[in-house]
This record gives sequence, C-alpha cells and structure tokens, in this order.
Amino acid sequence: MNSVVPVKFESAPLIESITVDVPAPSLNDNTADLDRLARTLNQLGFSPVRIAPGIMDGLVRKMRGYDLRFRAVAGYTGTHWEVLDVIARSPDQAAFGFAIDLGTTCLVFRLIDIARKKIIREVLVRNPQAAWGEDILSRIIFARDRQGLAVLRDSLVQACSNAILKALEDSKVPADCVYVLSCAGNTAMSHFFWGLDPSNICREPYIPAANTFPMARAAELGFDFLPNALLYLFPNVGSYVGGDIISGVVAAALNSSPEVRMLMDVGTNAEIVLGNNEWLLACAGAAGPALEGGVVERGMQAVPGAIDSVRISRKTLKPDFRVIGGGKASGICGSGLIELVAEMFSSKIVNIQGKFDTGLSCSRLRNTENGPAYALALSSQTSDGLEILISEIDIGVFLKSKAAMYTILSVICRKVGLSFEKLKKIYIAGNFGNHVDPEMAVRIGMIPDLPLEIYHGIGNSSLLGATMLICDRTLLAEAEKVRNMITYVELNVNVELMNEFRGALFIPHTDTRLFPSVQAQRNS
Amino acid sequence: MNSVVPVKFESAPLIESITVDVPAPSLNDNTADLDRLARTLNQLGFSPVRIAPGIMDGLVRKMRGYDLRFRAVAGYTGTHWEVLDVIARSPDQAAFGFAIDLGTTCLVFRLIDIARKKIIREVLVRNPQAAWGEDILSRIIFARDRQGLAVLRDSLVQACSNAILKALEDSKVPADCVYVLSCAGNTAMSHFFWGLDPSNICREPYIPAANTFPMARAAELGFDFLPNALLYLFPNVGSYVGGDIISGVVAAALNSSPEVRMLMDVGTNAEIVLGNNEWLLACAGAAGPALEGGVVERGMQAVPGAIDSVRISRKTLKPDFRVIGGGKASGICGSGLIELVAEMFSSKIVNIQGKFDTGLSCSRLRNTENGPAYALALSSQTSDGLEILISEIDIGVFLKSKAAMYTILSVICRKVGLSFEKLKKIYIAGNFGNHVDPEMAVRIGMIPDLPLEIYHGIGNSSLLGATMLICDRTLLAEAEKVRNMITYVELNVNVELMNEFRGALFIPHTDTRLFPSVQAQRNS
Repeated sequence: MNSVVPVKFESAPLIESITVDVPAPSLNDNTADLDRLARTLNQLGFSPVRIAPGIMDGLVRKMRGYDLRFRAVAGYTGTHWEVLDVIARSPDQAAFGFAIDLGTTCLVFRLIDIARKKIIREVLVRNPQAAWGEDILSRIIFARDRQGLAVLRDSLVQACSNAILKALEDSKVPADCVYVLSCAGNTAMSHFFWGLDPSNICREPYIPAANTFPMARAAELGFDFLPNALLYLFPNVGSYVGGDIISGVVAAALNSSPEVRMLMDVGTNAEIVLGNNEWLLACAGAAGPALEGGVVERGMQAVPGAIDSVRISRKTLKPDFRVIGGGKASGICGSGLIELVAEMFSSKIVNIQGKFDTGLSCSRLRNTENGPAYALALSSQTSDGLEILISEIDIGVFLKSKAAMYTILSVICRKVGLSFEKLKKIYIAGNFGNHVDPEMAVRIGMIPDLPLEIYHGIGNSSLLGATMLICDRTLLAEAEKVRNMITYVELNVNVELMNEFRGALFIPHTDTRLFPSVQAQRNS
Repeated sequence: MNSVVPVKFESAPLIESITVDVPAPSLNDNTADLDRLARTLNQLGFSPVRIAPGIMDGLVRKMRGYDLRFRAVAGYTGTHWEVLDVIARSPDQAAFGFAIDLGTTCLVFRLIDIARKKIIREVLVRNPQAAWGEDILSRIIFARDRQGLAVLRDSLVQACSNAILKALEDSKVPADCVYVLSCAGNTAMSHFFWGLDPSNICREPYIPAANTFPMARAAELGFDFLPNALLYLFPNVGSYVGGDIISGVVAAALNSSPEVRMLMDVGTNAEIVLGNNEWLLACAGAAGPALEGGVVERGMQAVPGAIDSVRISRKTLKPDFRVIGGGKASGICGSGLIELVAEMFSSKIVNIQGKFDTGLSCSRLRNTENGPAYALALSSQTSDGLEILISEIDIGVFLKSKAAMYTILSVICRKVGLSFEKLKKIYIAGNFGNHVDPEMAVRIGMIPDLPLEIYHGIGNSSLLGATMLICDRTLLAEAEKVRNMITYVELNVNVELMNEFRGALFIPHTDTRLFPSVQAQRNS
C-alpha cells in the first residue's frame, strides 16, 4: 500500500507529535508537572489543552521517566487540544490513525502513518450486520428495541476491532501508537456505531437521534485496546444525507470552489451533491442496486471474480472481458454491466429500448425461459461451470437503474436552474466509481454527455474524506461547514419526474439531442 | 440539618435544571433530537453545550418519552455546559449535589438540594487511610509505588462511596438525582483521590503531579453508582497550599475585598492566607497537632466526648467544663485546651512560662511521674474512669503549638509590612475554629490582641467553599483566580523566627505590650 494521502503538502494533521522540553521545576517555579506540560504546549501554540482524568497519572510518570524531554502527542478536537500520550523522542516512534468507512455492505479500514501522510495498509471486511438484514431498513427495524440495537452495535464494534487488530498485527504497529479513529458512515450506520436508537430515521418526519457526535475517546465507544485514541465520527444532515456524504463532499472540496461541481456516490443508493462555495444541494434515490450488480441475476459486487470490463466485437458479436483478480468469472459487477449493455447497444444486439434483435445470427444468443439472452461467459470460463447470461429482463432491470440515475442528475440540476454544461467537474465515487468508464456510461445515457475530462473517479469518497481529515485538521471545520450548508432535496414522484424517467429508460434517451456524441458515433 | 448555604440569594448554581420545550420536528425542520436539544439550550443562554457519548442514547429515549417537554439538567464546567440528564417537569424532581471535604483525618460529606440552596444532611467519617499512617507523610511514602497508591486510593473512594450511599439512603434521595460532587482536599489528599503519584510532593523542589484537575464525570473517578454526576476537585497552588485552602479563601471571599483580611485554617497543620483583591500570601506551619488536641496525652478531636470549653473558679480553683454531645468526658480537644490553659493562667495555677505554682493549695493538683498536673475531670466524670490530667509537659507541648501559631501570624504580617491593626477581618477556620473562643485564644497569646469582633469562626472552610461552589458557579472562576493570585511564602527557620518563637512561648508573650487587653485584665 504505502500511498500518500492527497492533501496539501503543508496541511497540519489532526494529531500532532510535539517535541517538548519542559523546563525543570525549582523552588521558584513550582508549577505542577501536568500544568507545566500544559503551559509549555500553550507556549508552543497548542491551546487550550485538556488532559483526561484517567491518563493523568500515567502521563506524569512518563514525563518523569523521560526526564522532562519527550514528545507529547495531542489531538485537536475542534475546540481544544487533548493530550493523548507522552513518547520518546526517537524518530521511529510514529503516530498512527485509522480512517474507517462504515458501509452498509462493507467496512473498510485504512491504517495511516500520520506524520508521513502515508497509507500503510487497507483492510476490507463484510459488514457482519448483513446477518440481520442485507438492507439497512431491516436492520433499523431489528434495532427498534434496545436489545436488537445492542446486538447490531456489538457485531459492528467487534468486526471493527478484529479488523483493526489484524491490520496492526500485520503492520507490526502497537495498539498504543494509534491516536485516532476517523469514521464515516451513513446516518443509520452512524447510529448503530454510536449505540443510538435509529427507529425515527425511517419514520416521518425522518429525524435522527443525533446529527453531530462529540469527539470521543475510542475506549468510550468500546475500543478498550486503543487507550490513547480519539474517535471522530462525521456528522450527518438528516436521515438521507449521512456522514459518508459529508466526508465525500469534504474530500472532493465541493464547498471550496466558486464553480459548480457535482459528487455522485453510487453505492447501495445513489447520492448526489451539487454546489459550490455558496450552496450545496443533496438528493438521494434508489438507483444503485442494479448499478452495483446486485439485482441482475448473475450480478455481484466489484470483488475478485467479477467481470468489470467488456468489449464486444462488432464483426463476430463475441465478447472479450476482464475479470477482477484474473481467473475464472463468477458474475458481473456494475461497471461490467454498463460496458456490456453499452457494447450490446453499439453492436446492435439490443435496440434503444433494450430489446434483443432476435433476427441476428450470433452464436452467443440463447433462448431461455426468461426470453432471449446473451452469453457473456461460456461454461468453460466460469467458476461454477455455468454460462453467465444476460437476459432481456436483466437489461430491463438495469435500464431502470440507469434511468433513475440520469433522472436524479437531471432533476437536481433543473431544481437550481443549471444546465449540465455548467458543471466543470463531476466526481464519481463509490466502488463503482473506481471501475466505471465514463465513455461507456455516457453511451448508455446514464450520465450526461459532457467532455469526458470533467469526470473524475475518486473511489471510496467517504473513506477518502476520513483519511484526509487525519492529515488535515482544518477539515474538521470544513465538515461542520458542509453540514450546515447542505440542503436536502426530496425527489417527489410527480409527473415531471415520471416523464423524465420514461425518456431515460431508452438507450441513451428518447431525446437523442441530449446525447450528441453518442448519436454522432452511431451515425458514423 | 436543612441549613441554607451562605451565598448571595441570586447566585446561579453550578447545576441548572432547565425547563425545555423542544419544538417538534417536521419535514421542514429535521434537525436531530440531540442537536435540537442543544439548539434550544443555546437559545436559552446555555452555550456551548456538550453531551457525553455514553449518555446520548438514554437522553434521546427520555426526550421522546417526555414528548419533548421536560427539564434538562446541565452542569457548568467553566468552559461549556455538560448535559447530564433529562427529567420530568414535576416539581418534586430535585437536583442534588455533594460537597466533600477530603481531610487527612476526617472526610465530611454534605448533601445539598441545589435549587433550594439547602444543606439536607452532613456525614463525617474517619479517613480510612489512617490505617496506613496517621500523618500524610507516611501515606505519601506508602504510595510511592503504584500498588500502594492504588490501595490508598481505593480505600478513600470506597469510604466516600459508602458515606455518599448512606447519606442518600437516609435522605431517600436516588443516586441518579446527584449531579455533582464538589471536592476539596490538601494537595496530597487530592493526589490520592485522583490516583496521582504523590512522591514529588515531599521531595525538593516539592512539585505536585497536577495543580488543576479537569471537570470529570464522577464515574471516571470510580463513582459508578452516580451515572449523572460531574466531579470537581479544587486546584492547588503547590505542595503546601492545597485545594482545601483555595476553597477556604473562596468561601471567605478574601480575594474580593479591598481591605486586608486573613484566613487561619487550623487543622492538622496551621495554614494562613493573608491578602485582598490585589494580592494573596499563604504560609503553612506545623502548629496544629497540639491545638487540635492531638499531641497532649488526653487530647482528642472535637468529637462527642471531648471537653471543648473550660472555666476555672478563681476562688476554689475547681473547673467547670462542657462535653461535646453531653455525658461523660473522654478527653480534651483543641479549643478545650486553649480555654483550660487560659483559665489556669488567669487563676494563676500556672505562670507566664506555663510552670505550675506548686505552692498553691488546690485539691485538683496532682504529682505524677510527669511532674505536677491539674485534674480537669475526676474519675467519676470520665468515660474510662480515669482522671483527665493536664501536666506541665502537656502545657509545654501546647505552648510550643500556640507559639508557632502566633509566630506564623506575626512573620507573615511582617513579610508584607503590615501591622496586626490593619487587619479588618480574621476568619478562623477548621474544626478548631468552630469551637474556639477568640477571647481565650488572645488571653494565652495565640492570636493577636485585636478587637474580638474582627474574629469570625467559619467552621470547615474547605467544606464551605465546596458547598458554596455548588450554589454559585461564578466561584469556579474565583477558585482559578485565587490559585493564580496566591504566593506561597516559605517560613525559613532563621534567627528572626526563633527569637519571635521564643517570646511567644510565654503566656501571653514576653513582650506584654503586644497584649494590652490581657495585661489590663491581669492588673485589674
């Protein structure tokens, strides 16, 4: 791993390791050890300083042990500096932190060397809460009583603890060198993590228990094995705009540019934030499942075994594809699906409605009980020995997702009277964003037909924001600023939206003027 | 009990019980429950607000349970308001606090009804740490290793827990209605209480581990049965000027008067603070033990069974005395000793050197192996059937204490070029201060010969300050102000001091011009 966190070179980290020479006490200057430490830190510009009751004795003993010459590790909380530890001056005494993405499906952990701004290791595990419901709503219902909430919380904290311990062990980093957990998750996940009743999140008027979370000690949240760590959890704006979005907006710096930018986060849900340094608008919609590969019969997450890229020969109509991690294919993920449909459309295997041209002579066409289908992978190419077929029904489901995506983008821009052409940067986030080829997404009419260079994949933006926060403490205030700026827009199912959606169900769209580049290529 | 705390009527308490109508959430105002609570408290003038991670879920459930109409209990920490609880609006839902004096010998607990500013109950228990040393130095030595410190700390916290639980049970107050523990103790006791290494307190240059203590949750210090309580511990200025003194100075408001005042706290040690709103000087000395009755053979604390007041008939030379709590006498406490010596001097049983006039014909005179003695109580008047005798040796010991006391007062005033006449108020604190008759103390030359109305007994000033702080949150800042103002003066054993001391060993003094009223009475 060992990649560098994309922050300004001079950015000041959340955790500082401060070289301190505490002046020796004397009869004339008999200030106590800890007050002397605080005074010295104040003089070095770290003010105000707070020391938690439980660590005071340990700190004094270490200060004395190092003969008043040491490094003090302190974390910024937004209002004060919390002294976390006293360590030796030796240069190999590094300070570490974890950025954590608390996803509905997956939990991702990044171990960061704070001073060097380097990512040391990344661990992804399945969210064990899936055992109580793949979708978040089932989990919210399960957590309606205190016992259910405790079960979900414990499973989450346990999974996080295991992953963190594993990452530390593999990297040979001691647990007491971890000084911060910077976490982001959607509003429900944040509630599970914090042990808060989530039941009002999904009940009108959709009120979370908390929008903001105080900077805590990790031990307070159940991470007893991290005695020196602070824990930060990104705030949310409401039930639909969670800390994962806020973190993503902070990562993409949407709020610091005068030009209008957009962040599309395509996870289990599609979430869009649009705006600049003066306003931010967010909306969310159920566009995701099919785009993540979750709805199509042979769909799967973008994990090893998934087909994530497809080309179809215009002559033979035979496919060529790439499998994540190499080897035999197990299924197809969202980006693979986009490319497959785009290529089937360009090869005229399906028409603008997504219907098969059954008159075609093509060895890959199958007749199944679900109607016509295309054999993307032959039985010899798959891990289970079964052909990976994509049926007309699959394509229909997929087109609903891509239409929903386009409709959301279109409606939110219209809300603010903005034409797509005014967008100067569009960040595509999510696992999906890592793999998707914007040209293909444009070709099927999922995203606007804009110059391809304005599209930027930024991967897991929630994790990215949490990572950047550790390396740049000014982002604490940015997160709060973003939280206060964002307005959530409810996409009501009205006539306008339905008309928009119906047009977008076509490939690329009924109104071909919206996709001039696709039209030009098709005519060429 | 049920006495009123002596604070300004309009003083604002540390803990506020705030009537809150949280506006109902709606689709247009979807701020989360806790952020809505914080916003409402802000609007009511309580800002900034913090809610501890561990209580967030419980608060939300209570808020909803009370249908968003409740009282929020919040405590002021000096920098923010900490939300502690959400309670019903019913008027019998009171908020309570404990003021605690962490004395070397005794622990005193006061249960306070905060809104009514009333003392509900007071409990005094022996400090169980005495098992590891009556004097604080032995305990400091015992606590030099971590295990010893843990033993001392545990015994203290256990004794405090038991006393608090007993007081709550006897007063029928539930533990979750206790919102603050306001504690004061000398520097070593504060270290034991907080679990801090005290070993540098008694080693040059006498540096405590901490001067100031952060406002904590009581549970963090081991009081798990008080889930809603904050814990405040008065700061200290150094090894010799502890939180008990700071608390006493705050109680006597020494720092808010332009005229110079003095606080004498005669506990196990004699501690003096002198000053006004511009400067404060403190010094301490080993004057106390004999004055507390601790050194004299039949000496004891001012507890039931102690003789605390004595008169001797000038004719018969027979004594009349008062026993604390009535009944038979077990010994004599400090104030009893002062009156006894004063009366023996006035009756000419002893001379100005404290030597017996053995030529006297008096049925109470005894010849013991310790030399001549006076029988204060006959065997029929004592609980153990043994006469309470005061010997010439006892008187010699006592005179050393009173001489030390006077010397300290004299030297500290001379340090600032102040004659005793400039003092407009002298507060006598300590258990001793509760019982002593200033006229008697002047007669033996223990305190300056000043108009008696300037002397004010204020009892346990450490406990009083801790009590007042609960009822007047501005005293938090006063305590910090006092801590920053106080200069500690070391009383070096030099020639000047020794000469002073030698003169003061006489009754009242070798320089009788210093005690004109005593002289006048003796000559009359």
